[in-house]
Amino acid sequence: MQSRHLIDLSDLSVAEWEEITSLACDIRENIDSYYGACRGKILATLFYEPSTRTQMSFQTAMLRLGGRIIGFDNPANSSVAKGESLKDTIRVVSGYSDIIVMRHPVAGAAKAASLYSRVPIINAGDGGHLHPTQTLTDLVTLRHEKGTFSGLCIGLCGDLKNGRTVHSLIKALAGFPGNSFVLVSTPYLQVPGYIKDFLSAAGAPWQEVDNLADAMPLLDILYMTRIQRERFASEEEYMSQRGVYVLDSAKMSMAKKDLIVLHPLPRVDEISVDVDDDPRAKYFEQTEYGLYARMALIMKMVKASDKQLCPLPTGVDIQCSNPNCITYSETYIPHIFRKKGDILVCDYCEERTLL
Amino acid sequence: MQSRHLIDLSDLSVAEWEEITSLACDIRENIDSYYGACRGKILATLFYEPSTRTQMSFQTAMLRLGGRIIGFDNPANSSVAKGESLKDTIRVVSGYSDIIVMRHPVAGAAKAASLYSRVPIINAGDGGHLHPTQTLTDLVTLRHEKGTFSGLCIGLCGDLKNGRTVHSLIKALAGFPGNSFVLVSTPYLQVPGYIKDFLSAAGAPWQEVDNLADAMPLLDILYMTRIQRERFASEEEYMSQRGVYVLDSAKMSMAKKDLIVLHPLPRVDEISVDVDDDPRAKYFEQTEYGLYARMALIMKMVKASDKQLCPLPTGVDIQCSNPNCITYSETYIPHIFRKKGDILVCDYCEERTLL
Amino acid sequence: MQSRHLIDLSDLSVAEWEEITSLACDIRENIDSYYGACRGKILATLFYEPSTRTQMSFQTAMLRLGGRIIGFDNPANSSVAKGESLKDTIRVVSGYSDIIVMRHPVAGAAKAASLYSRVPIINAGDGGHLHPTQTLTDLVTLRHEKGTFSGLCIGLCGDLKNGRTVHSLIKALAGFPGNSFVLVSTPYLQVPGYIKDFLSAAGAPWQEVDNLADAMPLLDILYMTRIQRERFASEEEYMSQRGVYVLDSAKMSMAKKDLIVLHPLPRVDEISVDVDDDPRAKYFEQTEYGLYARMALIMKMVKASDKQLCPLPTGVDIQCSNPNCITYSETYIPHIFRKKGDILVCDYCEERTLL
Repeated sequence: MQSRHLIDLSDLSVAEWEEITSLACDIRENIDSYYGACRGKILATLFYEPSTRTQMSFQTAMLRLGGRIIGFDNPANSSVAKGESLKDTIRVVSGYSDIIVMRHPVAGAAKAASLYSRVPIINAGDGGHLHPTQTLTDLVTLRHEKGTFSGLCIGLCGDLKNGRTVHSLIKALAGFPGNSFVLVSTPYLQVPGYIKDFLSAAGAPWQEVDNLADAMPLLDILYMTRIQRERFASEEEYMSQRGVYVLDSAKMSMAKKDLIVLHPLPRVDEISVDVDDDPRAKYFEQTEYGLYARMALIMKMVKASDKQLCPLPTGVDIQCSNPNCITYSETYIPHIFRKKGDILVCDYCEERTLL
Repeated sequence: MQSRHLIDLSDLSVAEWEEITSLACDIRENIDSYYGACRGKILATLFYEPSTRTQMSFQTAMLRLGGRIIGFDNPANSSVAKGESLKDTIRVVSGYSDIIVMRHPVAGAAKAASLYSRVPIINAGDGGHLHPTQTLTDLVTLRHEKGTFSGLCIGLCGDLKNGRTVHSLIKALAGFPGNSFVLVSTPYLQVPGYIKDFLSAAGAPWQEVDNLADAMPLLDILYMTRIQRERFASEEEYMSQRGVYVLDSAKMSMAKKDLIVLHPLPRVDEISVDVDDDPRAKYFEQTEYGLYARMALIMKMVKASDKQLCPLPTGVDIQCSNPNCITYSETYIPHIFRKKGDILVCDYCEERTLL
Repeated sequence: MQSRHLIDLSDLSVAEWEEITSLACDIRENIDSYYGACRGKILATLFYEPSTRTQMSFQTAMLRLGGRIIGFDNPANSSVAKGESLKDTIRVVSGYSDIIVMRHPVAGAAKAASLYSRVPIINAGDGGHLHPTQTLTDLVTLRHEKGTFSGLCIGLCGDLKNGRTVHSLIKALAGFPGNSFVLVSTPYLQVPGYIKDFLSAAGAPWQEVDNLADAMPLLDILYMTRIQRERFASEEEYMSQRGVYVLDSAKMSMAKKDLIVLHPLPRVDEISVDVDDDPRAKYFEQTEYGLYARMALIMKMVKASDKQLCPLPTGVDIQCSNPNCITYSETYIPHIFRKKGDILVCDYCEERTLL
């Protein structure tokens, strides 16, 4: 792989993630023949904030490959509570394990951890910043259920402002020919401007609508997300709009015969239970595709890797302007940026700072 | 098996549970030869209320068969905390695993889960309602220690009102010839009327006494249970009666030479520590028999099963009269009942509702 | 082994721990060939107080040997919370497992547990009392990094009063010829008198100093420990002395070329991050040596052991004078002492009581 770690989906070349989605498909068909592929290997799941489902999905992936698992899901019980730095924890755990999956509440934590790890790190979420294996899951699901990444009309509905998996999916699919996007949300929960810019720059047609029913007939794919009551601008707005973003049988009846409905789960009430029995509902299958995607990813990353510590990059004496960046809480980390014109982009949290 | 799931002991025919107790005996003798029987299989332990001991017992059973384990014991950290329904959790986890063990605080939860699971479900307790593997454990212990299920005088002592394992054991043993029952408890903690009716209908002699010492000489088996201070009608009653239900060396000296003493554990102080060294005390061995029973059960259930979702039964528009029934908290579940004369018996929680 | 259990390092003869450190070295070189050495065996980690790092280290050791793990790290969820005695928990878990690792907040708990266990017990810490596998880790590190246990000048710095790993290491090394000791701490945090007596009796030269910089040029080994702000006699003393006990690059520049720096981790700020890149810093490697040490120990103890319960020793009617001794909280344990002149030494917590 071009990188030893998977922090962001951009760590994978298109060839690499096509290879992984293809391997995931083969695992799905022949899962038993992959038992033993990680025999004797240990996956550490370091969950600095609990997320049972995500942790269980990675654990299952490793166990189905014949590997073993260690880890924690409650930093209150760990050395962290004694004041240990991220660097020290990673140095120690990368001495115990062959691959690390990490979830952390602070933006850039996985990238920071990768500097000090002797084994590959997979980012399983860093504070709403990135969550590349969810996007990989979505792509494996599309590959299977649609057989193509091109020529699709993709609807995304719900909280499009805060959901980074939505942003990643848009970026991944905008690069394929013939895709168009319908963005369904309240004015308050629209996708950020830079995503719209990205779509326009990629030449992908897109439109914003505020009503799911209107969008239904157009779609080949409908990607639903949780939209939380507290995310509406006011209680009044919530009361007036609840139901507009709930997918139910009535709305399904307006859709194409070969629509597929996805959702990263858990859902609350944004999809009615009566949709579950519709053969176009694929969100439960999606979690299984996620398992195969993670198996493929772990296999590839464990195989590619010798235990080694890479040289630390040299930092600069500039502080990132995002106060939730990992460089604030872990002060010894070298500050590194990419320069884009007169803007510095933080290598950890992607925040843009004007010089 | 006649059912894919083990929700209640009645899911097993007598032939089946005799087969399982027999297999458990063979596992006890030849445990090493069963390592590998569940190679590559995954057991999920979903503990919606924590019970380390029960969870550890199932985990050990699966590991001794060469299988692997995933799961949670703290719903506060899980998707449940985000408002996920039982159905969704089960749909997802049954995509990850080959068999699920589940404990839940609400009556009927395991039955409800079984409707949405693609893999077999074992009920490890649903709110004091049912706990069939404890009864299986008790039966394996009897088979080993007594060599028979017939012709026994069985004493049960302590909280006979709330202890469902006691009720299940009585129902299982009442069907064998020549058994008689001595029920030792305070008036306030007596077995419910329907259990007495069951015994009478089965033609099994039974008596209620309020003094353990009086019963001791009669018994072939003494099944002790935890009796909690707060379960007495008043503090006065507790103070006047404490000691009456404590098994100690003095009481043991009145008993038969081949008595066996059982207890589902953990105990608090209802059995004195000095009884532990009496060779008739079998409660620690009992936990090991429980391990073999669970190994036998898991082996049998995993082997029998293909991953599949059964068609959902059709519900009726009647609400169960038990407010602690799972149909209240998980509202999408079809309401199903068995009709007995003019009474409806809820399929989830066994509550009887008069039409 | 001379004992089935490892409660204190003195349970191992010198020949035995040399055998274990030697095995640990071989495991380090050929780790893959040890996978399978504990196939089918189960390690239970019973952590009555959480310590994720220690637990993870033992779990990794067992998994790298091909064994399996069960256990708990949160007694609030366990049968303990229902009032179960240590004895009962150990009786049950030793029926499930092949070896137990135990951490407990009360002095003597591991020794007490060993009386009731059918499988070997490893003490992973009992209330600051003993922690023998940390000392084993330190010895394996020395063997590797120095190639000898003799002729060394050993500095120990920080909290030398409360750190039992420091005391154990001193006692283990004082027995080898040609070793001398430099004890660096505040007056308030000096090693206890009995350790100084031990050193003098063993004929090992030692000195106490209060300044780390002065000691640096003398040392072959520097063993750093966490020194907590609240451990200083007053805030003033802390403010005036902070920095005196912090190891940084400046102090490293005064040291020998072949010094090695150890630390049991986690560290807080007693070693500057800039020391990490000094090749003499061995504290991260030390955690890996700890893994090999634990693998060697588990292998040896599992192999040596049949499941059996040893006869209980006979106690005396004397109460230990240490109110934090396990005999206070677990009242059924026989009280046993070693007699030294007119002093009784408690077999559980090592407290000395004058007759």
